[in-house]
Amino acid sequence: MSALSFEILATDANGYARRGRMQLAHGVVETPVFMPVGTQATVKSMTPADLTDDIKADIILGNTYHLMLRPGADLVEKMGGLHRFMGWERPILTDSGGFQVWSLGELRKIEEHGVRFRSHIDGAEVFLGPKESMEIQRKLGSDIVMAFDECTPYPATYAEAEESMQMSMRWAGECREHLPVNETQALFGIVQGGMYPELRIKSLQALSAIDFEGIAIGGLSVGEPKEEMMAMLDALAPHLPVDKPHYVMGVGTPDDLIEGIDRGIDMFDCVMPTRNARNGTLFTDDGKLNIKNLCHAEDPRPIMHDCDCYTCRNFSRAYLRHLYMAKEILSSRLNTLHNLHYYCTLMQRARDAIAEENWPAFRHQFLQRYRGKA
Amino acid sequence: MSALSFEILATDANGYARRGRMQLAHGVVETPVFMPVGTQATVKSMTPADLTDDIKADIILGNTYHLMLRPGADLVEKMGGLHRFMGWERPILTDSGGFQVWSLGELRKIEEHGVRFRSHIDGAEVFLGPKESMEIQRKLGSDIVMAFDECTPYPATYAEAEESMQMSMRWAGECREHLPVNETQALFGIVQGGMYPELRIKSLQALSAIDFEGIAIGGLSVGEPKEEMMAMLDALAPHLPVDKPHYVMGVGTPDDLIEGIDRGIDMFDCVMPTRNARNGTLFTDDGKLNIKNLCHAEDPRPIMHDCDCYTCRNFSRAYLRHLYMAKEILSSRLNTLHNLHYYCTLMQRARDAIAEENWPAFRHQFLQRYRGKA
Repeated sequence: MSALSFEILATDANGYARRGRMQLAHGVVETPVFMPVGTQATVKSMTPADLTDDIKADIILGNTYHLMLRPGADLVEKMGGLHRFMGWERPILTDSGGFQVWSLGELRKIEEHGVRFRSHIDGAEVFLGPKESMEIQRKLGSDIVMAFDECTPYPATYAEAEESMQMSMRWAGECREHLPVNETQALFGIVQGGMYPELRIKSLQALSAIDFEGIAIGGLSVGEPKEEMMAMLDALAPHLPVDKPHYVMGVGTPDDLIEGIDRGIDMFDCVMPTRNARNGTLFTDDGKLNIKNLCHAEDPRPIMHDCDCYTCRNFSRAYLRHLYMAKEILSSRLNTLHNLHYYCTLMQRARDAIAEENWPAFRHQFLQRYRGKA
Repeated sequence: MSALSFEILATDANGYARRGRMQLAHGVVETPVFMPVGTQATVKSMTPADLTDDIKADIILGNTYHLMLRPGADLVEKMGGLHRFMGWERPILTDSGGFQVWSLGELRKIEEHGVRFRSHIDGAEVFLGPKESMEIQRKLGSDIVMAFDECTPYPATYAEAEESMQMSMRWAGECREHLPVNETQALFGIVQGGMYPELRIKSLQALSAIDFEGIAIGGLSVGEPKEEMMAMLDALAPHLPVDKPHYVMGVGTPDDLIEGIDRGIDMFDCVMPTRNARNGTLFTDDGKLNIKNLCHAEDPRPIMHDCDCYTCRNFSRAYLRHLYMAKEILSSRLNTLHNLHYYCTLMQRARDAIAEENWPAFRHQFLQRYRGKA
C-alpha cells in the first residue's frame, strides 16, 4: 500500500482547477493547499498551535539542506523524527536539498552522483546526492519526500537545459530505488527542462515511467518573467497525470496561486508570506500593504476588516506599525500569523469555489481586485 | 471612591508575608504578584492571549519613558489608551519614566522641576517632571500610576542620598496634586533614601502624609550587594502601612521574590524572566539552566518535568537548544513563555502557601532547592 492516496472531489467544468483530498501517514490534506515553510524545524515565529488552531494549515514544509546541517538528520531521528522533534502532528513535506545546494552558487560543485558543497554554518565539506537525500529524508520521517534534482539555471540554452534535465531524470530513478514504495513516506518526482516546453514534456514522460506518488514542477520562479512561468504551466497542464497531486515548487504570490490552481496545480509552498511578514509587508484582497508607511500610524482599523485571524481580531494597523518601528518580536509574529492565515484561507476559498462550481467567477473577481490595487 | 481597594486574605502568623487581593479599574490582582514587563506596549514576543491563557498574568507593566517617545502618549490616547492599543484588558501599571531617564547618565540633567534629556530614538530634547509624568500616564490610562522620583545613585553619601530623597518627596506631593484621587487611576508613592535605613523611614513618613493608594520601594537592585537590599527590606518591613499594597521595583530573581514576600512585599516586576529567556537562560526550581549548553543537545526532557506551560508540555530541551542555536524567533518566544509562566506560577505557589499557613516551610524548601543547584 502506498503512503499517499489522492481523491478528486470536484473539477472546474471548463478547465483544470480541481478540489481534492490527500491522505498521508499523518493526516488528511485538502487541496488546493498552501504549505507554510518551516525551514529549520519551525515555521518562523509560529508554534504548531498557531498553525493548527488559527492558520488551519494541513501540511508544512521542512528543508532537508538546513536540517541536515543543523541539528543534523541523526539527531532528529534520535528525537523521534521531525514531527515529534518540532511538536507538529500533521503531515510534513521535505524538499530534497537540491534547490538550496544549487543556490549556493560558487560554493558548490555538481558531479554525476550529486553535489559537493561547503556548509554555510561551519564550512565543512558535505556531499548530497539522490542516495544521501533519500537517506536523510527517511531519517526526518516526512510524509512526502521530494526527489533530488538539479534546478536548471535561468536563462539556459536548450542544450544546457536538456543535459540538466536528463541528469535530474537519472537521479529521479535512483531516488525511487533508494526509497521504494512504502506505507509511510510518499515520493514525488520533479519536472525540469528550463523554459522549453518540449523538454518539460519529455521530463514528465520520463517521470511517468517511474512510480511516483505525485508530480512536482521545479525550476520555476527562478527569475523568469511571470508570463513565462504561466505559459509553462499552460503547456504542462494537459499532460499532468490527472490522478496524482500536482505541486509547483516555491510559488508564489496570492495571484500566482490562483493562476496555478487554474492550471491544475494542487500544492504550493513559498517563503513569501513568512518573509514578507517580517519585513512589514501584509497581504490583503486589495493587494499588499506596507505597515511601515506613515499612513497607518493613526489607523485604528485591522489589516483586513473581514479577516478572522488573531491579529485582525485584536490589533489595529497603528499598533502593528508601532511594533514594526520599535523592532519588536511580536511584530514578526502577528504579521506572520496574518499572512499565513491569509494564504491558507485563500486556498479554502478556492476549494469552496471549485466545489460550488463557481471557480471562473471567483478567479476573475479575485484577480481583478487583487491586481487592481497591488 | 479610590481606583484601588486592597484586602488582605491571610498573613503568615510569625512574619510579614501576606496573601492579598487588589481591585483595580480593569480587574482583580491576586497578591503576591509578579508583573511581566511590557516596555514598548508589548511584553516582548508574547501576545495578550499568551499572558492570560498560559502565563495567567493578572497585571503587566508599561514604561512611560519608552511610550512617550514612541509611539507617543497622544497617539496612545487617541487609540483609546494603552489597554485598547495593545489589546490587553486586565490591569496595567506604568512607571513614571524617572528611572529610565536617570539611567541615561550623561545624557540627562536633573533640575528642580524634573529632568531634561535627549531621546535615545531621535536625539530630540525632552523634559520630564512630576507634572509631565502624571499627564502622560493619564493619557496612557494605566490602572496604577507611579510617582515621578529620582533614583538615588549607588553608592551615595548620606548627604547626597538625603538631598535626592527630599527632592523625590517634594515631587511625590506634586504628583498627587496633578493626579488627585479618582475612580480609574491609583497613584503609588516611592520610598527613596539610598542605603540609609534612617532616610528610608523618613521617606516613608513623608509619603504617609500624602494620600497614596500604594507604597513602592525604589532605588534597590541598582548594584548593591544582595544582603544590603535584603537588610533594607528588613528595616522597612515593620514600618510599611499594613493596609496598602507594597511594591519593590525592578526585583528580581526567583529567590529575591520569595525573600521579598517574606518581608511583606506584595508586588514585583523585573525584566529578568523576559530578557534572560531571549539569552537562553531558563528558570527552574533547581536554579537557572542555560539552553545553549551542549549537554542539552540530545536531551528529550522538557525544561521542567512538572511545569504545565505550553513550552514544557510540547518541546524537548534538544528542540529548544536547536531553536536557540539556529537563532529562530520561536526560541525567544518559547523561552519567554516558560520563564514568565515560572515566575507567575511561583507567585501562585507562594499565595497558596501563605493561605494554607505553610509559608515558612515553603520558603525554606524553595530556597534550599533553588540555591542548592543555582
